[in-house]
Amino acid sequence: MKCKRCSGPAVVEVRRHNAAFCADCFVHHVREQVRRAIKSHDMFGPEDRVLVCVSGGKDSLGLWDILLDLGFRASGLYLGLGIGEYSERSRLATRAFAAQRGAELIEVDLRGEYGFDIPTAGKKGSRSTCAACGLSKRYVFNRVALDHGFDVVATGHNLDDEAATLLGNTLRWQTDYIARQHPALPEREGMVKKVKPLHRLSELETATYAFIRGIDYVVEECPLVAGNTQLRHKEAMNALEARSPGTKAQFFLGFVEKAASVFAGEDRQGVALTPCERCGQPTTGRFCAFCRARAQVLGERLAQAAGDPRTDHRQVAGELSEEVMPAEIYASSGGRDG
Amino acid sequence: MKCKRCSGPAVVEVRRHNAAFCADCFVHHVREQVRRAIKSHDMFGPEDRVLVCVSGGKDSLGLWDILLDLGFRASGLYLGLGIGEYSERSRLATRAFAAQRGAELIEVDLRGEYGFDIPTAGKKGSRSTCAACGLSKRYVFNRVALDHGFDVVATGHNLDDEAATLLGNTLRWQTDYIARQHPALPEREGMVKKVKPLHRLSELETATYAFIRGIDYVVEECPLVAGNTQLRHKEAMNALEARSPGTKAQFFLGFVEKAASVFAGEDRQGVALTPCERCGQPTTGRFCAFCRARAQVLGERLAQAAGDPRTDHRQVAGELSEEVMPAEIYASSGGRDG
Repeated sequence: MKCKRCSGPAVVEVRRHNAAFCADCFVHHVREQVRRAIKSHDMFGPEDRVLVCVSGGKDSLGLWDILLDLGFRASGLYLGLGIGEYSERSRLATRAFAAQRGAELIEVDLRGEYGFDIPTAGKKGSRSTCAACGLSKRYVFNRVALDHGFDVVATGHNLDDEAATLLGNTLRWQTDYIARQHPALPEREGMVKKVKPLHRLSELETATYAFIRGIDYVVEECPLVAGNTQLRHKEAMNALEARSPGTKAQFFLGFVEKAASVFAGEDRQGVALTPCERCGQPTTGRFCAFCRARAQVLGERLAQAAGDPRTDHRQVAGELSEEVMPAEIYASSGGRDG
Repeated sequence: MKCKRCSGPAVVEVRRHNAAFCADCFVHHVREQVRRAIKSHDMFGPEDRVLVCVSGGKDSLGLWDILLDLGFRASGLYLGLGIGEYSERSRLATRAFAAQRGAELIEVDLRGEYGFDIPTAGKKGSRSTCAACGLSKRYVFNRVALDHGFDVVATGHNLDDEAATLLGNTLRWQTDYIARQHPALPEREGMVKKVKPLHRLSELETATYAFIRGIDYVVEECPLVAGNTQLRHKEAMNALEARSPGTKAQFFLGFVEKAASVFAGEDRQGVALTPCERCGQPTTGRFCAFCRARAQVLGERLAQAAGDPRTDHRQVAGELSEEVMPAEIYASSGGRDG
C-alpha cells in the first residue's frame, strides 16, 4: 500500500475513506479532520480559551495534543472520579502529558470538592454508575469553565462514541436527546459552549494517532463500564461497519447533515432556566440535577441545606423525585462523556 | 412455565412481554395483536375487501389465516417471480392453503404478464435483484388491487422486518423513506391503501403461530436474498434484542408512537402524480419506475413503445435515467415486501 498523500510506504489504512497513509501524512490527515470539524461547526477561533476535558485516555489526550499543535489556547481539566487505581493512573498520565507539553492543567477531585466519588454514587444514588458519572462530569466541566473564564469546553468524543450514542438515542427515539446530539452546542445563559472536535475520526484513528505521536495514555477502559449499554451499541455498529465500511460515518455525519434539522423542534431547551438554589448553576427546577443527586448520595436534605424553613417530609420527597432530563441542563446527548 | 392467560402448561415464551402461553392462548395472543394493529391504525373493517399478498411463507400465509379467522373478507394474491424451484414451491404452498381454506386466490405470473422474471431483472437491469423485486411487487400489488376493486392491500411484514428496515433507513437517514414507514398508508389517487397487520408480532411469533396452526409454508428464504443488507440489519437487531429483550418493539413501535410525527414533513408525497404514459399507473415523471425498469430489462424503448414520434437517442437516455424514488410512487419504505 502507498500513502495516498505522498506515495511513500503506507502504515495505516482508513477503509471508509478507501485510503492509506504513512505516519506523517496520517498525522496530517487527523489534524485536517479536526480543523475541518472546528471550521464547519464554528467551534472556536485562535483567540478563544478552550477547556479540554481530559480523562487520560487516547481520545482526550489526543485532542489536547492536536489543539496545541494547531496553535489553539487549550488548557486541560482533569476530574478525579475516585475509581481506585484506574483514576490514579489516569491522573498521572494527564499530569505527565501536561508537563511534557508545558500546558496548563486544572485538577478537580470529586470527593475533595463535592464529598463523594463515583463508586459511592453508583451504590447509594438512584442513578446507574454511568449516569451519575456523566451528570457529575457535565456539571463540573461547565462550572470550572465558567469559574475560570473559558470560552468553550471541548470533549474527546470520537465518531464511534457519537454513532453509538445516536444509535442508543434512536433505538429509544429519545427525540430531545437526538435534537441535542450536535458536534457544537452553543452557549446559553449559565452554560458554556460545548464542542466535539474529534467527531469525524473513528476510535481506530484516534488510537493510531496517539500511538504514532507517542502519547502515553491509559489503555484500559473504565472498570465500571463493563457491559454497559453504550458498549453494546458500539458492538452493533462495529458489526455493521465490518460488513459495510463507512456505516458509522454515514450514520452520524449523515445525521448532522441531513436529519438534525428534522429534530430541531424536539429540543426542550425552550424550558426556562433559573439558578439552582443550592449552587447557582442553571436548572429547570428549584435544585439542579447534580445537587439533587449529590444530596441523595450524601443523605442530605436540600431545602434544609439551603436554610429553608419551609421544609417538610413531603417537600423533601418532592425535591428528590423531581427529575428533569440531564440533557435539558448540561447538554447530555445520552452517551458517555470522555 | 405456566400460561399467562389460563395457567395451564406453557409451550411458548415471549420474552419481550415477559409472558408464556399454552398453544391455544398463544393463538389468541397473536390474533389479539393483529386485532389491535388493525383497530389502532384503522386498517380496514368487516365490509372491506382485503387483498393479502402471499409469498407462501409463514408471515403472509399466517396473516391470511388470521384475517380469515377474524372474519375479514380476505383474498390472496400470489405473484410468480420466476425464481426457479423456490417460486414453484411457493406457488404450490399458496394454492394448497387457499384450497384448504376455500379462499379466493389470484395468481399473476411476472414473466407471463410482463415478459421478464426477477433473476433476469437482476442481471439485465440497473437495479439490484432485491430492488427490482420490491419494485415489481409494489407495482403488481397495487395494480391488481385496483383492477379487482379491493379496498386495501395487506402485506405480511412482521416486527423484525419493520425494525430492520427502519434501522437501514435510519443508518442512512433516508428521511423520506422513514416518513413513509407506517403500518398503514392511506389511499391516494391511483394508489390503494396499504397496511401491515403483523407489525406488532416478531418473526419468532409468526413462525410459532404457523407451526401451531399447522400451516404448510415454505421454510426456505429466497435464494437470491443471501447476504443482502436487510439481513445484516436483522442480525444487528437480533444481537441487540438478545441482550435487551424488547429492543425491536421499542424501536419500531416507539417510532410509530413518538417519532413518526417528527418526520411527517419529510414525506415527498406532495409531488404531483400523473398517469404513466405506458401503463396509466401514477408516477411523478412521464413513465413510471416499473415501466422504465421493465423497458430496460427487455431492451425496449418506452417512447417508441408508446407510439411517440418525438423519440431521439438523447430522449431515450433521459427516459431511462430519469429516476424517481420508488417510495414516491408505490410507498416503499426501503425494505423487503413479503
